[in-house]
Amino acid sequence: MATSILTEILQLAGILAFAISGALVGVRRQLDLLGVIVVGASTGVGGGILRDMLIGVHPPLSFLHWQNLTVAIAGSLVVFVLHPGFARIRHFEIVFDAFGLGLFSANGAVVAAVSGQTALTSVLVGAITAIGGGVIRDVLVNTVPGVLTRELYAVSALLGAGSAIAILRLTGDATLASLIGGALAVTLRLASYARGWHLPKARFSGDSTA
Amino acid sequence: MATSILTEILQLAGILAFAISGALVGVRRQLDLLGVIVVGASTGVGGGILRDMLIGVHPPLSFLHWQNLTVAIAGSLVVFVLHPGFARIRHFEIVFDAFGLGLFSANGAVVAAVSGQTALTSVLVGAITAIGGGVIRDVLVNTVPGVLTRELYAVSALLGAGSAIAILRLTGDATLASLIGGALAVTLRLASYARGWHLPKARFSGDSTA
Amino acid sequence: MATSILTEILQLAGILAFAISGALVGVRRQLDLLGVIVVGASTGVGGGILRDMLIGVHPPLSFLHWQNLTVAIAGSLVVFVLHPGFARIRHFEIVFDAFGLGLFSANGAVVAAVSGQTALTSVLVGAITAIGGGVIRDVLVNTVPGVLTRELYAVSALLGAGSAIAILRLTGDATLASLIGGALAVTLRLASYARGWHLPKARFSGDSTA
Repeated sequence: MATSILTEILQLAGILAFAISGALVGVRRQLDLLGVIVVGASTGVGGGILRDMLIGVHPPLSFLHWQNLTVAIAGSLVVFVLHPGFARIRHFEIVFDAFGLGLFSANGAVVAAVSGQTALTSVLVGAITAIGGGVIRDVLVNTVPGVLTRELYAVSALLGAGSAIAILRLTGDATLASLIGGALAVTLRLASYARGWHLPKARFSGDSTA
Repeated sequence: MATSILTEILQLAGILAFAISGALVGVRRQLDLLGVIVVGASTGVGGGILRDMLIGVHPPLSFLHWQNLTVAIAGSLVVFVLHPGFARIRHFEIVFDAFGLGLFSANGAVVAAVSGQTALTSVLVGAITAIGGGVIRDVLVNTVPGVLTRELYAVSALLGAGSAIAILRLTGDATLASLIGGALAVTLRLASYARGWHLPKARFSGDSTA
Repeated sequence: MATSILTEILQLAGILAFAISGALVGVRRQLDLLGVIVVGASTGVGGGILRDMLIGVHPPLSFLHWQNLTVAIAGSLVVFVLHPGFARIRHFEIVFDAFGLGLFSANGAVVAAVSGQTALTSVLVGAITAIGGGVIRDVLVNTVPGVLTRELYAVSALLGAGSAIAILRLTGDATLASLIGGALAVTLRLASYARGWHLPKARFSGDSTA
C-alpha cells in the first residue's frame, strides 16, 4: 500500500478543480485579481491543510511542496483571465466543486489509511478533506456552505471515502482506490445535482431567521 | 486524577446537547435531513475536535471513538423526526446550547488538566471547547456566533472551566469537578438568559454596518 | 539566529494592534463589553494560535504565556471605554489592522524560520499568521474578510514575510528582519489604502449573489 505518481496527479487535479470553483465564486463576487487568487488558493489547498492539522502532519504538505500552491494559483489566474467567456458561472462552480469533492474524498481517505489511520478515521478524514475546502470558500465569501444545502453533498463525500477504503482493503492498490472512489463520488454528486435528488426537508413553518 | 465512566457519560451528554442545538438550528433553516445531520454532528463534536487540535491529540478522539459521532447523529435524527412538536424552537436551541456549554467547559478543562496541561491552559482549553461547537454551528448557518451576543456566554464558559480546575486541584476528583463546574456554568448561563443579564453595551451611534 | 526581547515586544505590539482593530469592530456592531473583549482577544491572539496549530506547537504559545491574552484583553477594554471619542471608527479599524498585519507577517515568518522551517513554509506561515486574526474577526461578525476586499492586503502580508526571511538569511538578525519586514508591509498596506491601489477587478456583469 503505497501512493504513486498517479495518486499525486489525482491530488493536484483535486486542488485544481477546487481552486477553479473558488476563483469562479471570487469572479462572481467581483473581487480584484488578488482576492480571486486568495479565494481560489484557499479553496484549493484548504481542505488538505485541514486534513494535515487533524492527523498531525506539521507543517501541512501544501507548505512544503510548492506544486500544490502553484497549481491552485495558476488555476485561479486562468479563471480570472478567461471568465468573461463563462456564461453560466454558477453551473461551472458546481461542476468543478463536484470534481474536487470526488478527488479529495477518495484521495484523502487513502492518504490517511496509508499513513496508518484506522478505517473509521480514514473515511472521516477523507470526507472532511473534501468538504473542508468548500466550507472555507463559502465562509470566506459569507454564504451558507454548500455542504448544508447542495444535493447529497456529504453523502457523496462519504461514498467516495468509504468506497476508496473498501477497495484499498480488498486490493491494496491506492491508485485504483482513489480512482474508483473518486469516480463514484463525482457521479453521485453530479447525478443528484442534475436530477435534484435530496433528502426530505425539515417542515418548519415559523420564521426561519427570527 | 483519572477520568472515569461518569466523565465519559458527561462528555457524551455534552455532545448530545450541542448536537440537538445544532440540529434545531438546521430545522429552523429548513435544511434537508442530510444538512440537519451535518450541522448537528459538527456542533456536537466540533468543539472537542478543536480542543484536540489545540493540545495536539492526533487524530481527534471523535475520529477514533465511534460513540461520539453516533450520539451526535442520533440526536440530530431525533430532532429532525420530532421537530414539528417544538413550538418554541429558539428557546430550545438556547437551553440545549447552555447544557452543552456547561458540560463541555468543565469537562474540557478537566481533560486538559488530567493530560498534564497547566491551569491557565486547561481553563482556556475548556472554555474554547465549550464555545467552539457553537461558533462552528453559527458560522455554518451564516449568523453572528452566540458567544458575541448571548448573555454572559463567555463568562459562563470561563466560570465552568475555572471552577472545575479549582475543584480538581482541591479534591483530585475529576468527576466531581466536571459535575459541579458544569452545573455552575449552566446555572449562570440560563439565569442570565432568563433575566436578560448582560454587560454594558458599546455606545456607538454611527452606522454599524457602514 | 535567536529571538530577542525586542522580538517579544514586536509580537505583543502586533497582538495589541489586532486586538484594538477587533474591539473597534465589536464597538461598531454595538456588542456588550464581553462581546467586545471576545472579538478583540480572538483577533489579537487568533493568528498566532493558527500559526502554532499549523507548525505543530501544542498547546499554542498564547495558552502558556499570560502576557499575550492580557495585552489583547487590556487593549479591548481601553477601546470599549474610550470609543465614544473615535469619530472615524472605520478608519481606525483599518490603520490598526495594518499595523497588526505588518508586525505579524514579518514576526510570524521569523518565528517559523528560527524554529527550523524552510523558507517557503516560513513565508506562508508568516502571511497566514498575519491574515488569520483578521479573518477570524471578520468571520465572527459575519462579513467578508478584508483579505478578499482590502487593497493589496495579501500582497502586503507576503511582502512583510518574504522580506523578513530575506533579511534574516542575509544578516542572521531576527530583530532587524522583524522590524524592516514589518515596516515594509505596513507602508505598502497603508499607502495602497490611502491611494486606493488595487489590482484589476473581475468583469462579471451577471447577478453576483444569484
